[in-house]
Amino acid sequence: MALENMKIKIFSMEAGAPVVVLNAEDARDAGLYSKDRVKITTPTGSIIAIVDITKTMLKQGEVGVFLEIKRALDLKEGQFVSLVPVMMPRSLEFIKKKMQGKKLEPAEIREIVEDVVLNKLSESEISAFLTSVYIYDLDLSEIESLARAIAETGERLEIKKHPIFDKHSIGGVAGNKISLLIVPIVAAAGLTIPKTSSRAITSCAGTADIMEVLAPVDLTIKEIQEIVEKINGVIVWGGAVNLAPADDIFIKMNYPFAIDPRGQTLASVLAKKYAVGAEYVVIDIPTGPSAKVENMDEAKKLARDFVDLGERLGMHVECAITYGGQPLGRAVGPALEAREALRALYGSKSPASLIEKATAIAGILLELGGKAPKGQGQNLAKEILHSGRALEKMKQIIRAQGGNPEIKPEDVQVGNKTATFCATADGYVTHIDNKLIIQIARAVGAPKDKGAGLILKVKRGRRVAKGDPLIEIYAESESKLTSALNLAQKIQPMRIEGMLLKRVPEIMYVEE
Amino acid sequence: MALENMKIKIFSMEAGAPVVVLNAEDARDAGLYSKDRVKITTPTGSIIAIVDITKTMLKQGEVGVFLEIKRALDLKEGQFVSLVPVMMPRSLEFIKKKMQGKKLEPAEIREIVEDVVLNKLSESEISAFLTSVYIYDLDLSEIESLARAIAETGERLEIKKHPIFDKHSIGGVAGNKISLLIVPIVAAAGLTIPKTSSRAITSCAGTADIMEVLAPVDLTIKEIQEIVEKINGVIVWGGAVNLAPADDIFIKMNYPFAIDPRGQTLASVLAKKYAVGAEYVVIDIPTGPSAKVENMDEAKKLARDFVDLGERLGMHVECAITYGGQPLGRAVGPALEAREALRALYGSKSPASLIEKATAIAGILLELGGKAPKGQGQNLAKEILHSGRALEKMKQIIRAQGGNPEIKPEDVQVGNKTATFCATADGYVTHIDNKLIIQIARAVGAPKDKGAGLILKVKRGRRVAKGDPLIEIYAESESKLTSALNLAQKIQPMRIEGMLLKRVPEIMYVEE
Repeated sequence: MALENMKIKIFSMEAGAPVVVLNAEDARDAGLYSKDRVKITTPTGSIIAIVDITKTMLKQGEVGVFLEIKRALDLKEGQFVSLVPVMMPRSLEFIKKKMQGKKLEPAEIREIVEDVVLNKLSESEISAFLTSVYIYDLDLSEIESLARAIAETGERLEIKKHPIFDKHSIGGVAGNKISLLIVPIVAAAGLTIPKTSSRAITSCAGTADIMEVLAPVDLTIKEIQEIVEKINGVIVWGGAVNLAPADDIFIKMNYPFAIDPRGQTLASVLAKKYAVGAEYVVIDIPTGPSAKVENMDEAKKLARDFVDLGERLGMHVECAITYGGQPLGRAVGPALEAREALRALYGSKSPASLIEKATAIAGILLELGGKAPKGQGQNLAKEILHSGRALEKMKQIIRAQGGNPEIKPEDVQVGNKTATFCATADGYVTHIDNKLIIQIARAVGAPKDKGAGLILKVKRGRRVAKGDPLIEIYAESESKLTSALNLAQKIQPMRIEGMLLKRVPEIMYVEE
Repeated sequence: MALENMKIKIFSMEAGAPVVVLNAEDARDAGLYSKDRVKITTPTGSIIAIVDITKTMLKQGEVGVFLEIKRALDLKEGQFVSLVPVMMPRSLEFIKKKMQGKKLEPAEIREIVEDVVLNKLSESEISAFLTSVYIYDLDLSEIESLARAIAETGERLEIKKHPIFDKHSIGGVAGNKISLLIVPIVAAAGLTIPKTSSRAITSCAGTADIMEVLAPVDLTIKEIQEIVEKINGVIVWGGAVNLAPADDIFIKMNYPFAIDPRGQTLASVLAKKYAVGAEYVVIDIPTGPSAKVENMDEAKKLARDFVDLGERLGMHVECAITYGGQPLGRAVGPALEAREALRALYGSKSPASLIEKATAIAGILLELGGKAPKGQGQNLAKEILHSGRALEKMKQIIRAQGGNPEIKPEDVQVGNKTATFCATADGYVTHIDNKLIIQIARAVGAPKDKGAGLILKVKRGRRVAKGDPLIEIYAESESKLTSALNLAQKIQPMRIEGMLLKRVPEIMYVEE
């Protein structure tokens, strides 16, 4: 039943969705319930809103609107409008279909994602969808539809220099600064690689956080396109452009439960690649204890899914299953990682694991781009790195993004307060836990304090004596330094075991 | 990381939960994400709040709070507070456990329900729980825990006159005004029956809406206790007392999907009975085409579940599977139903189906209460009804609740605008659809317009000729009358079939 002559009361804030608030009596009279949809009409326009109900905040005859609706209809306080109940969005029916375990059609998934982006669904409704996807999972054709819908309901990069290359690491490994080497190597070889990256969410340094030490990363779509068309590569923050807005909303909903539902994660990763127009993509799947993927079988299955899904989306995807059982290289934290990457580009002494991994993945891209014959990509990548061509390209990228291209590794500002965490016993380093290392780096201030982080003085497999330095902690404030050191002592991120403690021989990974 | 010296900005409205809004930059600096929990501390107190993030509404250094938090901490605009991230509530872990299909322990369910009632969970988090419950369902021990938790986290009736009797209809049948007969019959026999009932949600007249035509129904816990202890019975609105607050929240979340998850529905019904202290309960399960339960097998299964669950909760539950394939009696809509019930109490000519069903269920209660030997309850119920003792008791109830006990059926105000919907062909009435009848009654204004509704001139099985009146529609306004009549013509709530159209003989239910 319609509500006529309702007096507008403006709540000067955003609700995140077009929410209209009704007095409980009015709602009852109109037969309206929380989450019902109504059409609000003024002499000049109308909008569909989601009903919320209050017993206290409004008098009968008043309706409360938030800024979203105020702006859309240019409403004034005290103005009169009418409200007519309308049908619930059809996407709710499709969500219910998934709640019943049924397969969704492409158009149905598209409509759900569209309604998410257009704010037509409430958070609890989106949550019901994501929970169902988590429980039932999606088949590959549904994941394809989801990836397309996520990409197509956002902005997209349109770069003219084809083919377009890209890489993505699924995360979980501390110190994984490889994009700062891969992008300049690949771009130096003449391939197009518009790398959009994320900031840390649960980690201590996303690629965007690290790159930001060297240059601004929040560029517009247009700037990205221009730079890439000129110099082949960028390393920017994807969050500054509206590439896959539905994905951001989905991630926010999953956050309280710390879940990465398989279908949604696959769709999310490739949707972002699809949105930048990528045609050749390498996915890095770090695998090992304390990484996101802990064993090889799981890694292989995920790799196959990425390849199959890529094919459906018209992308050639290859996966690199890499060792992720400890942090990569030695530096962890935005500035420390930027410095380590810069040192590698300058040809200074660098961790072998970093060079090996970065050139291996760059090598696959070089082979896919026809720059090297099969099996020769990594050699070419190393050559480009060692010849200084990668450094030259990185300088161009830094300049193009607005940074100082002449920055040297020693110019990078790292935390000026340091402390050393030492071994409390003799033995072998048998495990360096990514999650615990990340926890310490966050405690010392990363990613917010760019200079905060840590340097691993030893890696897995090394013999250490009691009192030997294990980790150098860098901080921008004394108090954070102390609390990080205390945390390290409490959680012991490195496991040190004596030879006599383990009778069953264990395979030792010796690196660097 | 803590945020110190944050300046309070008060949003003068309720958020439905203790929500604190942060500027996106501050949130990033503190490593906080939407839905994270923080402890807000002032010199005099603290509260745990759910984080929301804005890019536009707050400057750095400001935090927005809604009225819930303002009140709890007695905050003033511009005051400074500190925020410290705290652990997510443990109930999120338990919800995740159910998302993974695992069985929940009583204490886990209790903690989820408590956090729901205490507003510690966001709507999307509650929705994830309900979606998981819908998909995996609950086993009987989980349903028991849920029912206890729902009842124990709300207020409870404490009536001294034991044992306590109750009845519940699971709904779906139009015109089901039986409580207005059952309660006075049972109370007149000396049994205690504190009937809390609901208003219409998706139907056109809840028991509370119908009773409200005769007397106020929004009584306090204390008033209900006093009346019941004095005169054995009441018929009140459960929504006016805080009997099962979690249930109201759950119902609100399920509403957009129009779902009644089995476990949740069972728990919801018996939690309310548990909260009023009921020891003997009869559940009416209307069964038939267009009812909530469409076939006998389903009805029997549901009945067994109710009995088992009742036993777990220390209640003796019996179920009456009743014919629900068409509306009950002839009147549909609050005032029309109140009048029909009053006529039955006054001994005027009444639909046989109404008298039969009401006395059958009242009879079970009388037998359970030892007032009649097994098999004789319905006879006693009819005797109490026909003797006028039920009417006398109803007058006491009306008076106690604050209504006029001398009201006669002809005093009940029904809609003064009427129209007749007639048969468009000769034939037999083979089906009267509950859902379509309810739709028409809602279109004509029920439950808001108390006098709106309809009277069925024929019931299932009757032979009609073209032009015969089928339904008399009652309205309080001409425009609603017209639109309801148009709707009736469009959706044809009665199916009329000629003898020649059906070769396979069909069982005809002939009533009244």
